[in-house]
Amino acid sequence: MAPVPDEVDEEAAERVVVVGAGFGGLAAARALADAPVEVTVVDQRNHHTFQPLLYQVATAGLDVDDICYTTRGIFHRQRNARAMQTRVTGVDFDAQLVRTGEGPPLPYDHLILAVGAVTADFGVPGVVEHAFGLKAAAEAMEIRSHVLRRFELAERTDDGARRSSATTIVIVGGGPTGVEMSGGFAELIDKPLRRDFPHLDADRARVILVEGRDRLLPSFAPVLGDKAKARLARMGVEVRLSTQVASVESDAVTFADGTKIGTDTVVWAAGVVANPLARSLGLETTGAGRLVVDRQLRIPGRSNVYAIGDVAAAMLEDGALVPQVAPGAIQAGRYVARLIAAEVAGADGGGHEVEPFRYRDKGSMATIGRNAAVVELPVGPKITGFPGWVAWLGLHLIMLVGFRNRANVLVNWAWNYLTYDRGSRLIIEPDDDAG
Amino acid sequence: MAPVPDEVDEEAAERVVVVGAGFGGLAAARALADAPVEVTVVDQRNHHTFQPLLYQVATAGLDVDDICYTTRGIFHRQRNARAMQTRVTGVDFDAQLVRTGEGPPLPYDHLILAVGAVTADFGVPGVVEHAFGLKAAAEAMEIRSHVLRRFELAERTDDGARRSSATTIVIVGGGPTGVEMSGGFAELIDKPLRRDFPHLDADRARVILVEGRDRLLPSFAPVLGDKAKARLARMGVEVRLSTQVASVESDAVTFADGTKIGTDTVVWAAGVVANPLARSLGLETTGAGRLVVDRQLRIPGRSNVYAIGDVAAAMLEDGALVPQVAPGAIQAGRYVARLIAAEVAGADGGGHEVEPFRYRDKGSMATIGRNAAVVELPVGPKITGFPGWVAWLGLHLIMLVGFRNRANVLVNWAWNYLTYDRGSRLIIEPDDDAG
Repeated sequence: MAPVPDEVDEEAAERVVVVGAGFGGLAAARALADAPVEVTVVDQRNHHTFQPLLYQVATAGLDVDDICYTTRGIFHRQRNARAMQTRVTGVDFDAQLVRTGEGPPLPYDHLILAVGAVTADFGVPGVVEHAFGLKAAAEAMEIRSHVLRRFELAERTDDGARRSSATTIVIVGGGPTGVEMSGGFAELIDKPLRRDFPHLDADRARVILVEGRDRLLPSFAPVLGDKAKARLARMGVEVRLSTQVASVESDAVTFADGTKIGTDTVVWAAGVVANPLARSLGLETTGAGRLVVDRQLRIPGRSNVYAIGDVAAAMLEDGALVPQVAPGAIQAGRYVARLIAAEVAGADGGGHEVEPFRYRDKGSMATIGRNAAVVELPVGPKITGFPGWVAWLGLHLIMLVGFRNRANVLVNWAWNYLTYDRGSRLIIEPDDDAG
Repeated sequence: MAPVPDEVDEEAAERVVVVGAGFGGLAAARALADAPVEVTVVDQRNHHTFQPLLYQVATAGLDVDDICYTTRGIFHRQRNARAMQTRVTGVDFDAQLVRTGEGPPLPYDHLILAVGAVTADFGVPGVVEHAFGLKAAAEAMEIRSHVLRRFELAERTDDGARRSSATTIVIVGGGPTGVEMSGGFAELIDKPLRRDFPHLDADRARVILVEGRDRLLPSFAPVLGDKAKARLARMGVEVRLSTQVASVESDAVTFADGTKIGTDTVVWAAGVVANPLARSLGLETTGAGRLVVDRQLRIPGRSNVYAIGDVAAAMLEDGALVPQVAPGAIQAGRYVARLIAAEVAGADGGGHEVEPFRYRDKGSMATIGRNAAVVELPVGPKITGFPGWVAWLGLHLIMLVGFRNRANVLVNWAWNYLTYDRGSRLIIEPDDDAG
């Protein structure tokens, strides 16, 4: 049966498989809504995780359901797309098949690899065993339960050293995640946990933010890093710059200079590396494991395979790499969708000479706490304090998927703001038995 | 230092320890707010679980944070009460000490045992290993994740038998929990999962409700059980009455008549027994493990120890036992608080001749699904259909703890009602790795 031009033929439509339902994968799949293709989005989880707000789940400000959205639900209304949860185990590029953990392999005509990044331990001993990462919803819930559980323990013990390490939280990495996380913990302890644990001296609880370089928010202008540091210090966070972590143990963290801090809770926000799936594909990768792509985000030699977002080493015009941030992934996803749509439309006449991918830096922002954020735009003044914070709230609300999630986030943010409370201080543990 | 009448002396105030932060324990602690006592509420979890709505978490209608509230938070404003999370391991009644898993034992002058009930397997083989209970937040999340995971699997398999058992949900027990649960699953499958899994035939998914007796809702008037059955049948639930479960396997359930249904999901809502802690205390218990109490809910021979709620075998005037429902626990909690307050106030002059506990039956209700519930009041007409459903919604909203939880429940219920969606269809699993 010959394909009819300008009409989607269910059988003959070209198949686009998107691996990964993060910002990049979703943007690509959505941007293909009007293309005569069949899109399948595959992810190891059944939901998109809004990673920028994971730290608020970890610090009891939001519910986990507020910031996750089922991938299948996202595509209810997109007739040419579907989603499934399965783990991708490999790709047969010659046969054009994506191999999965369960069921038959998925055939593709165009493949978009958008599997993102994972927490990088940079070879520091003990990170994998004893530190918490913050990339998935389950991790955020684990951090929350763990910290609250430690405070319960601290209240019941007479051992001063044990109490101290139970109420000391060390966050490694002074980028946006580390800054937001430490601000979030400072606020959680300062009001809600102070009220929850009147028999503990909340002033002795410590939040320590450790950064290897000599300032916070190294990707921002120096003045913003300084502002963040001053603000965090006022909130009671101990900021340690130019400090390298040598190892993490179950009850302590040791620095390169040999000093040691007793702590039961280390959150590792020091950076990410490309999803290890990238290295296993037999394609060219950078030292950091990112997939090498050409200026059109194609895998060299595989013109129907694209890599976008944190897993791709996409080059800027100046030779630097596109930063591993959500807007980079979203822009790449939309760009690749346009490429595929153009190619499918002009399937007989080539059309490969399209513009290379250009990343538009729209600025960066990080919130520090109540009424405080730093915003850096490509042009114009830097925004800090309350206006920055309102901009941060608004942008994150807009970016969230789904009306229900937005409404719930709004209720919870209003509650937190007006009452200084954090409503989700629940310890929910898998070993919780029925008793 | 002699206690000053009518004034609370922090040092000399009598200590009330409440074990269990369910409906009974919370009611007792709150009713002691104005009494010159120091109240400590101990629970193995750090939150009160609103058990009547757990089934909505399991069926993806509500978020787990909507129906749980931290026990410490509940007592922020009650100056004479505090809460802690720890597992009670025993009681030394002579020394008046509650032993806990961590930290020093808790001394008490008055002890209220309100540890509730756990899922009863009635000795049916395989229930503990293969069936889900529904008493804790973690269990509700496990059921939700498990069912959604099974549907993912069903879509990817070519094996008809495997697909069938993956999409068959068996609920054992035709009381309110079983009725509400099966209605919840029927609605989850009928609209949201039908849209989520367009490649699966949702009409072949099965929800089977099994009850050993010859009608549903045996504690309600027969007409209401009949109405519930008819309504569930219209929603596609297969109701099997007079059916005994002989055993549960990992992929099937076998009935007493030898027939077998392939299923990966069995939810056990067939009944409860008293928390096993009760039997371990060395006190007199009934055959079902409930603590024997006198007409004032005291443990015989231990006039300063009370048992309330599901763990107590409190006698009605006619010799029957107080039913294991929330109002029974709440009324008993308030009653015992009055007793203790009176005793503390008149500590020198006795005051033990108070009225015995009387349980006031305020009626029962169960929701079946959208616009449908059955309500039975002690007097007056039975209420069904839409009016019953509105009454059910209103009562549950009022009973929830905390404004934030009520607001979130309201948002989610409105969303579910208007869109026929279930917003929390997330699979969040502990083995979810960072990848």
